[in-house]
Amino acid sequence: MKIAVLGTGVVGQTIAGKLIQLGHLVIMGSRSATNEKAVSWATQNGERASVGTFAEAATFGEIIFLATKGDVTLEIIQQAKPENFSNKTVIDISNPLDFSNGFPPALSISNTNSLAEKVQKAIPEAYVVKTLNTLTAQLMVEPSRLPEETHIFLSGNHAAGKEQARALLQEFGWQNQTIIDLGDITTARGTEQFLPLWVRLYGALGTPNFNFKLVRESK
Amino acid sequence: MKIAVLGTGVVGQTIAGKLIQLGHLVIMGSRSATNEKAVSWATQNGERASVGTFAEAATFGEIIFLATKGDVTLEIIQQAKPENFSNKTVIDISNPLDFSNGFPPALSISNTNSLAEKVQKAIPEAYVVKTLNTLTAQLMVEPSRLPEETHIFLSGNHAAGKEQARALLQEFGWQNQTIIDLGDITTARGTEQFLPLWVRLYGALGTPNFNFKLVRESK
Repeated sequence: MKIAVLGTGVVGQTIAGKLIQLGHLVIMGSRSATNEKAVSWATQNGERASVGTFAEAATFGEIIFLATKGDVTLEIIQQAKPENFSNKTVIDISNPLDFSNGFPPALSISNTNSLAEKVQKAIPEAYVVKTLNTLTAQLMVEPSRLPEETHIFLSGNHAAGKEQARALLQEFGWQNQTIIDLGDITTARGTEQFLPLWVRLYGALGTPNFNFKLVRESK
Repeated sequence: MKIAVLGTGVVGQTIAGKLIQLGHLVIMGSRSATNEKAVSWATQNGERASVGTFAEAATFGEIIFLATKGDVTLEIIQQAKPENFSNKTVIDISNPLDFSNGFPPALSISNTNSLAEKVQKAIPEAYVVKTLNTLTAQLMVEPSRLPEETHIFLSGNHAAGKEQARALLQEFGWQNQTIIDLGDITTARGTEQFLPLWVRLYGALGTPNFNFKLVRESK
């Protein structure tokens, strides 16, 4: 498929690289089409990899990943032009972490709202799905690095978007039963507010290479 | 030991019942010493069980559990008299859930503060430990109901309090390596903000009988 990844940081590079490995046509979007990190990424990833502005990337992608820092996600959607997201699955990985007062980060949106809900409102014709925002980039695309199956979550208002996201996640290596559909987009409040615990666990464990496995009482 | 449990709801009854089973002397504290639920609990739990006002309970207990609803925790500390908590381990299980606008609950305190921090400030001479607030009551005291080992967290400023809490958790059945010390009391922001995800998982799974197992990359 033709897939856009907006964002050139570790998450963007990791997702984009995995999508190339899987055989997709991938455009990495950034503020300028000559962004060094994006150009370098495309040069190293062969002919299926390309670069463009946010708007060019959003136009090209049949599926669009939001892999930017959470504090610029909404601004970047405006740069990419909201109409370019219409009738497409938009996978929002970004977290509204606010490091302006140092560590630990606060959340710039939380409690009775979420970044994912703001994203859905900004692109009402898109099928926004929040997922993958609860773990480190490398594990997003290679869950088998962990010695046991762990779980991730889906939040979204549109069944079609969630199905497409689930299919891609399975391409990434997530077993179907490990992908938990939490419900509509407001459930992203839960996974976004999980980040403060994730950050402290990173501190306590000294590594970001962990995830949670949901264990239920046996019947 | 002499242990006070403040709160007569499901969490309070479950914790108090387990402590009796383990051989402790347990007083259940409530607004009035003739609280029906507390008296009924004591009647059913033999001579090591007693009841009292919040202040009587806090005076009696060498360890004090805060097992009330989060929206009244701070008020109940005042009723119990802050000085009665001094130099004691205080285990705060309460969550600042606000159901005033229905489901899903909001958090009345979150992001850059936590209920646990407010509790510690209200009783500065106490050793406040936040723990057990991330799972349902029955699993708090019987983690082996789950088919695999799962994890819980400790937050607190005082090593002595965390050691005493850890020892009690081990009496409850938690293996030492499943009790993760997140750090100081501010880390309770993480576990309290985990509740919105917990609530949505309860909805998605249809049962509260689950917990998380932390899975790390093998070395």
